[in-house]
Amino acid sequence: MEKDNRDGNTISRRELLTGAGKLTAVGGIALVTGGSLGLLAGCGNSGTGTTASNQGGTLPYPYEKLTSADIKKMSETAHENWFKGFCAYATLSGIVSILQEKVGAPYTTFPVEVITYAHGGTAGWGGTCGTLIGAGLAASLAAGPKAGEQILNEVMKWYSETALPIYKPDQPKAQINVTSISNSPLCHLSVNRWMAKEGVGFLSAQQMERCGRLSADVATKTVELLNNNADSRFAAVTKSPAAANGTPSQNNCTDCHGANVPKVPTPGGGESLIQSH
Amino acid sequence: MEKDNRDGNTISRRELLTGAGKLTAVGGIALVTGGSLGLLAGCGNSGTGTTASNQGGTLPYPYEKLTSADIKKMSETAHENWFKGFCAYATLSGIVSILQEKVGAPYTTFPVEVITYAHGGTAGWGGTCGTLIGAGLAASLAAGPKAGEQILNEVMKWYSETALPIYKPDQPKAQINVTSISNSPLCHLSVNRWMAKEGVGFLSAQQMERCGRLSADVATKTVELLNNNADSRFAAVTKSPAAANGTPSQNNCTDCHGANVPKVPTPGGGESLIQSH
Repeated sequence: MEKDNRDGNTISRRELLTGAGKLTAVGGIALVTGGSLGLLAGCGNSGTGTTASNQGGTLPYPYEKLTSADIKKMSETAHENWFKGFCAYATLSGIVSILQEKVGAPYTTFPVEVITYAHGGTAGWGGTCGTLIGAGLAASLAAGPKAGEQILNEVMKWYSETALPIYKPDQPKAQINVTSISNSPLCHLSVNRWMAKEGVGFLSAQQMERCGRLSADVATKTVELLNNNADSRFAAVTKSPAAANGTPSQNNCTDCHGANVPKVPTPGGGESLIQSH
Repeated sequence: MEKDNRDGNTISRRELLTGAGKLTAVGGIALVTGGSLGLLAGCGNSGTGTTASNQGGTLPYPYEKLTSADIKKMSETAHENWFKGFCAYATLSGIVSILQEKVGAPYTTFPVEVITYAHGGTAGWGGTCGTLIGAGLAASLAAGPKAGEQILNEVMKWYSETALPIYKPDQPKAQINVTSISNSPLCHLSVNRWMAKEGVGFLSAQQMERCGRLSADVATKTVELLNNNADSRFAAVTKSPAAANGTPSQNNCTDCHGANVPKVPTPGGGESLIQSH
């Protein structure tokens, strides 16, 4: 194995994730961190040759708190839009369309259908639930990449632990009976656990209705946190699983691995970097 | 269980995914499908009250084929940008920054850092690899949501089956020795399989270098297909796993489930909808 060539400097992805407010060098590249994901707040604004410039696309976009009436309308849009572009599009367009009405530009120039590909756990591969991909994009537009990710992290914890769907549309496309806890942010687990409990299959009217309601739920939770953030009342209380577990992961390792959870690999100089904080 | 209220109409998510070029009604909502994901090509342009409008954000953005020199520069940017904003940002900004140079607007007004949250399988939760989330967004910008998703689906198959990373930067941040096949689009599996083979831990300089190179690889594969698409030589040959397997999923069910692969649930009216095509 070749030697780590970092010249003895100790930048860690942990530090990138959790932030320590310091200037560090890794492989000759200077990184300025100013708190949790602090370096990212400046992405696109740094003017370096290798960073895409951000002319007219500076984040965050202006945010205006949504009222209960706004959230009801947003939920209706998200539910309806599932049937037009599936889950990621439904969640993103639900949030953005109400902000287009209340705030206008630059939300009106953002091509919301750009996220459609993330449906079904991204192009139907069963990975991260598309509602979460749409929510992360909406939160990043409205709160910037740093707070947007913190908000999404809280939404993902809530998503994994909460019996869903909660939303009951005035105009359902199908009647459904049950809620379920996904114990995972993955589409494959989330939708199959719900379908098994409801006793229906994929592509059924019930499954589509459930995912439409879920899109409204995730949009609503995201806006709740965006509203808190606008009032300076949002607190990032959940540690990123990558930081908590020493590898990108869910927190319930045994759910997939059973009792035989692999030890997190730490050879190669990683020991000092993978530790609780 | 309540009865499916679709009034005997047979709209299926399969049909939404694969398209049949017909007008169908589901729960009173008219959907126009015009081919694979055909309904999505019109998302944002339909002018309905519940669809977010798309003033100035019409997809696709103009695309100009990238040369070998462009791709080399893009790869350098993607690799470098991993260290500024991680995987999803690296892949998206790699592709978009070269198009900002070659095409200009509207790429110059797109806030590329909006995708940063998708790193580490989305906020560090180990789900869909962030490079794929960034690639899907770039492909959707440059080819529209329908072709963009088809391109991403091919990229995801390639990603899951190919020994990566391939890219060898002129200015590596660390030396790495091995490549690995992820057999999955999930960050958790992809990065942990590579780390186990390389014998390093998460947060090591080697892991960060590997993910930086992977960002360049995914950007390059995506652009290869975008170039083909620009020449009308792109063919969507891979069936979406959601269509192939009857549920959003990877194709290698036994990789997680072992020999005990659950039967795809089909009660509740789904039988006629879940079938090979």
